[in-house]
Amino acid sequence: MSAASNLLVRKLEVDDFGKGFLALLAQLTTVGRVNQDEFTGRWWELNDNPDYYIAVAEDTSKSQLLGTAALIIERKFIHSCGKVGHIEDVVVDEAARGHNLGHRLIDELVRVARQQGCYKVILDCAEHNIPFYEKCGLSRKEVQMVKYLDR
Amino acid sequence: MSAASNLLVRKLEVDDFGKGFLALLAQLTTVGRVNQDEFTGRWWELNDNPDYYIAVAEDTSKSQLLGTAALIIERKFIHSCGKVGHIEDVVVDEAARGHNLGHRLIDELVRVARQQGCYKVILDCAEHNIPFYEKCGLSRKEVQMVKYLDR
Ligand SMILES: CC(C)(COP(=O)(O)OP(=O)(O)OC[C@H]1O[C@@H](n2cnc3c(N)ncnc32)[C@H](O)[C@@H]1OP(=O)(O)O)[C@@H](O)C(=O)NCCC(=O)NCCS
Ligand SMILES: CC(C)(COP(=O)(O)OP(=O)(O)OC[C@H]1O[C@@H](n2cnc3c(N)ncnc32)[C@H](O)[C@@H]1OP(=O)(O)O)[C@@H](O)C(=O)NCCC(=O)NCCS
Repeated sequence: MSAASNLLVRKLEVDDFGKGFLALLAQLTTVGRVNQDEFTGRWWELNDNPDYYIAVAEDTSKSQLLGTAALIIERKFIHSCGKVGHIEDVVVDEAARGHNLGHRLIDELVRVARQQGCYKVILDCAEHNIPFYEKCGLSRKEVQMVKYLDR
Repeated sequence: MSAASNLLVRKLEVDDFGKGFLALLAQLTTVGRVNQDEFTGRWWELNDNPDYYIAVAEDTSKSQLLGTAALIIERKFIHSCGKVGHIEDVVVDEAARGHNLGHRLIDELVRVARQQGCYKVILDCAEHNIPFYEKCGLSRKEVQMVKYLDR
């Protein structure tokens, strides 16, 4: 892939099932079985919810998705009933990395979070991805803790 | 406070404004100005949303809240359209710490997350709180990154 002029960063649409959305996520983690009906059901749930925004980067010349990143907005009581944006599930297709797509996806989510009135955005990442997120303007803060409920 | 038998762990109710809910959160971070109408508005938003559950611990003999912790459930495509519970805004009144209230609040959120089908719960905390969350069954995982949008 070259630094495409055919590159469009936009909101996830319901027909992105056919443009490689799940194959992209499979480069990040376990997707499991998700058929088109299940994708569509979840897509409508999230599309109807103003607190979700899933960004994708599409190579429009090939109708192929090259990256995605999700924003979920949390409503709080603290900070004057403020909102916080959580960034999740960031991935760029292996063949398309290093062309600033990841950065553009994060910028898009930060733009939406700001527009929705979030006072901060946060995310969790592995040590080796810290330099990438620093390039996107984020800074290291706390420690993530986890408890698995499916094991 | 003694290890109260008057201790009730339950969901946040709309009349908890009068039971010291915001004073409790002020021990965690900046609450800012939140009047009763604003509290009530946000409470209804969250109460109507099945993806939020805010737990409180009340000393029923004094109608006083002693602790709180929030759960927000994120709906994903990965992990077979799975759900993840985010734990946020955990605080126990300074005079009531060390009596297992924090642990009981986290257990309550884990119970709800499990019941709602979350495959994991996650949270971010300062280094010095890691031992507390380890006692609650969580383990250290990744690194939290942040970008402030209000500065
Ligand atoms: C992390 C990831 C999304 C980055 O996407 P990308 O499109 O390759 O990144 P970009 O090209 O937008 O990089 C932006 C900047 O960060 C830098 N960068 C990216 N990854 C880096 C790394 N691992 N170490 C150091 N710098 C890095 C780039 O060099 C670039 O710097 P520049 O602005 O000076 O040119 C991508 O590598 C990926 O999908 N990885 C696998 C899945 C994953 O780990 N996701 C994150 C989960 S938290
Ligand atoms: C962190 C906090 C919620 C803990 O609440 P708490 O009610 O005092 O904790 P508990 O009594 O339930 O503690 C459970 C266990 O963790 C241990 N523990 C608690 N804090 C600890 C600490 N800082 N270091 C080591 N162990 C700790 C307790 O000793 C107890 O162990 P035990 O089961 O062996 O007796 C409370 O200290 C607090 O509100 N702190 C200020 C706000 C804050 O930092 N919140 C967390 C934001 S992420």
